[in-house]
Amino acid sequence: MPQLHALILAGGSGTRFWPWSRAAHPKQFLAIDGHASLLARTHERLEGWIAPENRWVLTRADLVETVAEELPTLDPAHILGEPEGRDTAPALALGALRVAAVDPDALLLILPSDHHIADPAAFRATVDRAVSALTADDGLYTFGVTPTEPATGYGYIERGDATGHPGCASVRAFREKPDRATAEAFLADGGYFWNAGIFLWRASTFLAELARASTEFAAGIESLGGVFERDDGPDALADAFRSLPKISIDFALLEKSDRVRVVEAAFPWDDVGTWEAVPRLRAEAADRDGNIVDRGVVTTDCRRAVVVRGDDVEASERVIVLHGVEDMLVVDTGDALLVCPRARAQEVRGVVETLRERGLERST
Amino acid sequence: MPQLHALILAGGSGTRFWPWSRAAHPKQFLAIDGHASLLARTHERLEGWIAPENRWVLTRADLVETVAEELPTLDPAHILGEPEGRDTAPALALGALRVAAVDPDALLLILPSDHHIADPAAFRATVDRAVSALTADDGLYTFGVTPTEPATGYGYIERGDATGHPGCASVRAFREKPDRATAEAFLADGGYFWNAGIFLWRASTFLAELARASTEFAAGIESLGGVFERDDGPDALADAFRSLPKISIDFALLEKSDRVRVVEAAFPWDDVGTWEAVPRLRAEAADRDGNIVDRGVVTTDCRRAVVVRGDDVEASERVIVLHGVEDMLVVDTGDALLVCPRARAQEVRGVVETLRERGLERST
Repeated sequence: MPQLHALILAGGSGTRFWPWSRAAHPKQFLAIDGHASLLARTHERLEGWIAPENRWVLTRADLVETVAEELPTLDPAHILGEPEGRDTAPALALGALRVAAVDPDALLLILPSDHHIADPAAFRATVDRAVSALTADDGLYTFGVTPTEPATGYGYIERGDATGHPGCASVRAFREKPDRATAEAFLADGGYFWNAGIFLWRASTFLAELARASTEFAAGIESLGGVFERDDGPDALADAFRSLPKISIDFALLEKSDRVRVVEAAFPWDDVGTWEAVPRLRAEAADRDGNIVDRGVVTTDCRRAVVVRGDDVEASERVIVLHGVEDMLVVDTGDALLVCPRARAQEVRGVVETLRERGLERST
Repeated sequence: MPQLHALILAGGSGTRFWPWSRAAHPKQFLAIDGHASLLARTHERLEGWIAPENRWVLTRADLVETVAEELPTLDPAHILGEPEGRDTAPALALGALRVAAVDPDALLLILPSDHHIADPAAFRATVDRAVSALTADDGLYTFGVTPTEPATGYGYIERGDATGHPGCASVRAFREKPDRATAEAFLADGGYFWNAGIFLWRASTFLAELARASTEFAAGIESLGGVFERDDGPDALADAFRSLPKISIDFALLEKSDRVRVVEAAFPWDDVGTWEAVPRLRAEAADRDGNIVDRGVVTTDCRRAVVVRGDDVEASERVIVLHGVEDMLVVDTGDALLVCPRARAQEVRGVVETLRERGLERST
């Protein structure tokens, strides 16, 4: 029986939760739920399930140290830094080659580090189902979330024929983020899932399929594989990595391969995509007026205010007072302050672009 | 011809403009207009009019040094610290005695330090008129502002008979801050002024009237005057000061004396009583959406936002971003943040009380 490895993807640009998140401190490092970071929660979900030696994190080179601090129980040698940002296909090839170098039969579960999954047991049951299906029907397994609204912020997976394994189907097509009308049609149709960005595949199958899809990848994978075999060191690794095409895994492989499957996610999934995730994940912390605020915050006659304080200023050093405010988001870090109505907080990404143009982004 | 002295009153508790103002840094030290403090502006108004050696400031003992820093051209020996807070009557007695000790014939113009007077020339013309009237008709001169609305936040002066001097009348009564209906009646009547808290009197006349109104004051003034004559030093001064009754000048004298006069203020007067004074005094700094913000503040799609940054954090150290916000006040100092709709900013005083009870006021 092949062993299951988990590869957690921890990149990100840090704009959605600005100024709490930064380029140097993206979303996965934030305790959105008020207690532990999304990355730590993702790692926690592997506990009692995937052996510590089978846990891996793939991240930006400049975030390797931050990941090590955030996950002190993870083997530091299992934190893989991408030599440079080249989109998801090269990154996943790197991860698969690294794991295959120690376990050629590895089954690889690819996990985003910045999603919230409220029911880890249900999540594990879905993955177990995918593992069973894969054992009988080898392929590239994706996980599809049943849409609850016509969301325009996710990619969609169009379900094909059932494969005969429970909750499992072939994939007819991947659909990019749709406009509203298309999203409504998808929802009405019922044959579309949200693409959760979670994958399961044999490292060897994935690499073979990727090589088959592109001669450039075939050559790059061979040269990168040689670097791992010979243990040539970081410079050779970086050179080989740079020879891989800069492309997403969707374009490079998933939209082309006929071995892609989708497994229906039987777990609650939250992509923590906007500031509204904070009140959603901290609902139990609301006061009787619906305010959800960090330590050292005083609200008088406020309704549904959300106040987040960065980790770099002690509550004792700075009191935050909101008076007579409704449905407002206030984010206060040492070097930046954001005040924005909650209903417009998803526009913060665009505001960060404006700040970047003016040299005011505060990336660190 | 007696010389005119100016005595600027610079006390205050610092709650109305919290967290910009503090107990240790009350309103008169703030650059409400964005350029210079109210105290500095008050002192500026004396330029080319009242000789430097005739300028005085009366303040809390703990604020003497702060006043000296704020007014570097003022003789430090002319900054009088009250040994303790004993309300306005003892304070004004102290000021009159100190000035009379160097100029027994002094004419004393009493000026609050925390009001805004947009037309210094018109102000001076009104004072000149009062000086003329006083020279012919010695008394205690108050300055009355013609009401423009039924304000409930000011004391009122009920005008008596004309004294025959231009813009000058006797006073029928002082009226404490009225309720709304009473204020409306005052406004409709036309015979009531707002009490601007500006006074003009001969030091000697004031002291004589105060002594005549109260035997306790008579004794206290005599003992305090002796301290100045003998130059007994601060401990003796404090002892003598503490012997004066703790009472306001309105109760102690103005409501009793038949020598009180009111001069109609022919200048625009603003008591800078609430946060709304900031947009009022900085109207010319508004952007096209009506936002009035300090340096280092970015507003995107905001309307009529007011953002004030304390002096203790450099703009380069901290960016403030408001997005999609309307009619909101944001005050950001190093150790405190306030977010409040502009329409409710006058309630801040009460909020500070709440903070004080919780030990969160940040008084310094």
